[in-house]
Amino acid sequence: MAIHKFVPKVYHTAIGTHEPVLNIKSGDTVITTTVDAGGVDASGKQVTEGGNPQTGPFFIEGAEPGDMLSVHFDRLAPNRKFGRSSTVIAPWVLDPQYIKECPKGKSSNWQIDLKRWKATLIEPKTKLGRLKLPLEPMLGCFGVAPPRRQAISTATSSTHGGNMDYRGFCQGATVHFPVFVPGALLHVGDGHALQGDGEIVGTGIEISFDVQFTVRLTKKKPISWPRAENEEYIMTVGNARPLDQCVQHATTEMVRWLQEDYGLDARGAHLLLGQGVKYDLGNFYDPAYTMVCKVSKALLAKVAKGKSKKRRRA
Amino acid sequence: MAIHKFVPKVYHTAIGTHEPVLNIKSGDTVITTTVDAGGVDASGKQVTEGGNPQTGPFFIEGAEPGDMLSVHFDRLAPNRKFGRSSTVIAPWVLDPQYIKECPKGKSSNWQIDLKRWKATLIEPKTKLGRLKLPLEPMLGCFGVAPPRRQAISTATSSTHGGNMDYRGFCQGATVHFPVFVPGALLHVGDGHALQGDGEIVGTGIEISFDVQFTVRLTKKKPISWPRAENEEYIMTVGNARPLDQCVQHATTEMVRWLQEDYGLDARGAHLLLGQGVKYDLGNFYDPAYTMVCKVSKALLAKVAKGKSKKRRRA
Amino acid sequence: MAIHKFVPKVYHTAIGTHEPVLNIKSGDTVITTTVDAGGVDASGKQVTEGGNPQTGPFFIEGAEPGDMLSVHFDRLAPNRKFGRSSTVIAPWVLDPQYIKECPKGKSSNWQIDLKRWKATLIEPKTKLGRLKLPLEPMLGCFGVAPPRRQAISTATSSTHGGNMDYRGFCQGATVHFPVFVPGALLHVGDGHALQGDGEIVGTGIEISFDVQFTVRLTKKKPISWPRAENEEYIMTVGNARPLDQCVQHATTEMVRWLQEDYGLDARGAHLLLGQGVKYDLGNFYDPAYTMVCKVSKALLAKVAKGKSKKRRRA
Amino acid sequence: MAIHKFVPKVYHTAIGTHEPVLNIKSGDTVITTTVDAGGVDASGKQVTEGGNPQTGPFFIEGAEPGDMLSVHFDRLAPNRKFGRSSTVIAPWVLDPQYIKECPKGKSSNWQIDLKRWKATLIEPKTKLGRLKLPLEPMLGCFGVAPPRRQAISTATSSTHGGNMDYRGFCQGATVHFPVFVPGALLHVGDGHALQGDGEIVGTGIEISFDVQFTVRLTKKKPISWPRAENEEYIMTVGNARPLDQCVQHATTEMVRWLQEDYGLDARGAHLLLGQGVKYDLGNFYDPAYTMVCKVSKALLAKVAKGKSKKRRRA
Repeated sequence: MAIHKFVPKVYHTAIGTHEPVLNIKSGDTVITTTVDAGGVDASGKQVTEGGNPQTGPFFIEGAEPGDMLSVHFDRLAPNRKFGRSSTVIAPWVLDPQYIKECPKGKSSNWQIDLKRWKATLIEPKTKLGRLKLPLEPMLGCFGVAPPRRQAISTATSSTHGGNMDYRGFCQGATVHFPVFVPGALLHVGDGHALQGDGEIVGTGIEISFDVQFTVRLTKKKPISWPRAENEEYIMTVGNARPLDQCVQHATTEMVRWLQEDYGLDARGAHLLLGQGVKYDLGNFYDPAYTMVCKVSKALLAKVAKGKSKKRRRA
Repeated sequence: MAIHKFVPKVYHTAIGTHEPVLNIKSGDTVITTTVDAGGVDASGKQVTEGGNPQTGPFFIEGAEPGDMLSVHFDRLAPNRKFGRSSTVIAPWVLDPQYIKECPKGKSSNWQIDLKRWKATLIEPKTKLGRLKLPLEPMLGCFGVAPPRRQAISTATSSTHGGNMDYRGFCQGATVHFPVFVPGALLHVGDGHALQGDGEIVGTGIEISFDVQFTVRLTKKKPISWPRAENEEYIMTVGNARPLDQCVQHATTEMVRWLQEDYGLDARGAHLLLGQGVKYDLGNFYDPAYTMVCKVSKALLAKVAKGKSKKRRRA
Repeated sequence: MAIHKFVPKVYHTAIGTHEPVLNIKSGDTVITTTVDAGGVDASGKQVTEGGNPQTGPFFIEGAEPGDMLSVHFDRLAPNRKFGRSSTVIAPWVLDPQYIKECPKGKSSNWQIDLKRWKATLIEPKTKLGRLKLPLEPMLGCFGVAPPRRQAISTATSSTHGGNMDYRGFCQGATVHFPVFVPGALLHVGDGHALQGDGEIVGTGIEISFDVQFTVRLTKKKPISWPRAENEEYIMTVGNARPLDQCVQHATTEMVRWLQEDYGLDARGAHLLLGQGVKYDLGNFYDPAYTMVCKVSKALLAKVAKGKSKKRRRA
Repeated sequence: MAIHKFVPKVYHTAIGTHEPVLNIKSGDTVITTTVDAGGVDASGKQVTEGGNPQTGPFFIEGAEPGDMLSVHFDRLAPNRKFGRSSTVIAPWVLDPQYIKECPKGKSSNWQIDLKRWKATLIEPKTKLGRLKLPLEPMLGCFGVAPPRRQAISTATSSTHGGNMDYRGFCQGATVHFPVFVPGALLHVGDGHALQGDGEIVGTGIEISFDVQFTVRLTKKKPISWPRAENEEYIMTVGNARPLDQCVQHATTEMVRWLQEDYGLDARGAHLLLGQGVKYDLGNFYDPAYTMVCKVSKALLAKVAKGKSKKRRRA
């Protein structure tokens, strides 16, 4: 249960089987930092090239293909006073006929007030004035080394995680990954002070982060897509194009999970999802989109209670 | 501001330019009923063929192409003690490789307790036991006559509304439709006692409804896709396949709406959505899927306040 | 085997259960005309509103739901000396990022030489000069009344046919439709002197046509999607969005056809398609796209011969 | 203009910046071999793990990002007497509702007659009997190292080429790639004795190959997607999901090419494609599908002649 303070020196813009920067054990906690999507650190210095540069990879001892790696975000917090975001919705998010009416791309600057937990729009000038929004910090891109000796661009995502840009991946969330390579090789990066669903302008408010996470390894627990949970929900994640395929991946993974770990039969799992499932849109910008399938823990507790009652009666 | 009590005698399984059943005026309220998706009424009698049969159409006096018709749902309530739902997730919602592992289709029966506002699963027997879920009544299919003398199946949806199967279309919501034909010709039907996001088993808990709605006509207010609002959000609706195209339609309509009615410039609208938009999945089952784009009224109030402040300072 | 000369007086821009214009029998031939997509006839007169207006519907005596209607195009020929086409590729055919670089929409005029069987580009002026292309006449939009009392816009297509805009639907082709309503109700229209794959500018060279077709009814022969054949190929047609879904519909229909009418077992059908299937892109412009799945008759003859040889040896 | 005979010893199942196996110059020819998709060589020996193992990479001297690498296939020929293919159409190629009716997966064996240039089906037993098909050898997977230090699985494809599985990539074809890394790093593999459009069972007839190719480097010729040509056509290739996006990539690349190298203005390029474009389906099986956009060289010659005539008259 060691706590490691780690200061990154190299960054990667593809998630792959790179040289590990630190060996850690299941149960260990890492306190580190990430630079922003453009490679700029807490002090405003460009320390690496842009493109969601990742801190890591962290080697988890004993992790082998077929295991599951759980990453709990103990703390995710912006660590400087400015952020930036794009300002124009990506053309593939709008009707093709409408695209010619869009304004030109332009960056926006935001002042980040870490005390009041607010982002204030500084420029460009729009009818929004100095819009103030509450911070909701999250990590856009993180994951484990993919299979088949691949190195996959941090612009995109797949079964290994990557650039999912989902608002739900915030402090307090736990994300479970399939392990594809020895050591799992966890990468983290791309902090957003705030982001709308879909990351439809191509960025959240991009900023450098203080990150603290704790890993836990489950041996021989093969999963197909990232799973996650927070206080309220269990979640499965599908990354692909078109969005339809994300729904398919995420829903299938949820059907499996309910049967594996929540004691449901196939028909029970289908039936429960039919009337109780929820979906969140992760990103609708990157080469692979992200859709998240959710079931509330309150509903699962109700199901479990119903089953145990039945058992008592029997 | 008349209140009309209307007892339906004919039903339609395509939304089109049918003979109106009642003429009403902007501001009028209609109290009526709908049969369930299978054509069964409150007394359990099959009164028409299945397939989301619609009550109506209602002719709104003075409605002309280019106007906007607003329908406020004053009351939406199941009016009998049983409902049914399908139990198997549609194959196109799951990974194609996984489909062979799905259980066979089978109907489920639910007891509806209108006092305690609960649905209880009666059969089939699954590990869920007698699962109890709170009612969240909504209308799955309703809309106005489409353009070009079309009659469009109530299995699907488009710019005219139709089978959108969105959980947010519940009591208290107002839905705005483009008017395509004289009188608009409003149809309503397909009540669900409850439904998960996506209607992924192909049904909610299907049941007959008491429906009370009030219409309001806005002259010369052309819109492209259904818009809606409730206490918390303004919403735009995209109906199409694949889901990507739903996102495009809904987002484009929201960009337009923010500029038309909320005083934003194009860049302001894009920028606001980038960090503030939310999406809900309507249906992911019907021939056209449904995605809903939302902006919170609290956020819009903040923007408006910012602008009026600025004006006062100026 | 009557031959009917029919002069149209009304046209429809939705395919549905309209009043039949002529009753014909299986085996009968109809000689008629179609106006161009804009409603302009052979003399250059606008005789009806635009939008692929259809001649018909023709009522085929004895046709009932569950039957198959075959339409053989005996003659398809432009019948005037000018045509027009759009000139700009639709924005949804191009990368969203590229759309802003496209030229503005503008119509082009073509001189049609019916002796030399050539179309010559007259305007606009481009680097193509007076480009001359050989005529390849085809019908873009035709079909039978859809089920469920629908009337479906001639802008789109589905199981009933409609606006498929496929270059292979030319003189000599036979198209087989499912019959959904008594009399089948055949509509024909939207002649193109010529068209590229995909109809990616939204039009072929649009022109009025002389049309001669012969119908044949097969009783109790339910099919799910249009099928077709010419001298070289048997073909199945999928109409939907996205294009992926067209491939699914067309391929499934072909797997069924090979088993129903060509004596193949399931594995044989799959295996044959795996190494022998071809696909053509119909339209990639309309609300529903079109993909055509093809198997060569030479290949089928080889399979049949193999089987009869085996039979003889046995 | 050296000719290199190269005997491979290592293979790669991801295309990336691996150690080059041979340095060659623009104009050089390489004579080498590839193992089959399963890693089995000409003698029937498993020499490496399966998954489209690639021979190479070949380092082309002087190749830099922004250049174009052209690969001409001088000779592509199966080099052994047996091949295998899958026998069941992939579930995502068929209607989701139909999948449960498909036969189970099973491999098939083919005898390859290199004299008569025929493949004969040996097993399984189906109604096809001992079906004989003419060979049409092609390479399914080949490409150059992708950008951003990625290593991309040979199961899929992108701007760098990869597993495109297009029947047109046969002897006599020239394929042009963007260069992303110094030396380009060309990989070749995955020979098919024969394949249907779409590779819809997931394989062609998989077999080891003798390969001879000649490379040519064009300096400072940035292209976005693979381009290709044979005697009849110029072609552009889009690799993505859904198929719609493949069409967008390929068509956009063709619009660019016509303007860059064939002297057309934008409107001329659009107009020519509108009435003259053709599309071929590459693969509809892999994680990224492939669509090929084609323009005939005869048509381009006609355009060029038109332009030179005009010039002479001027």
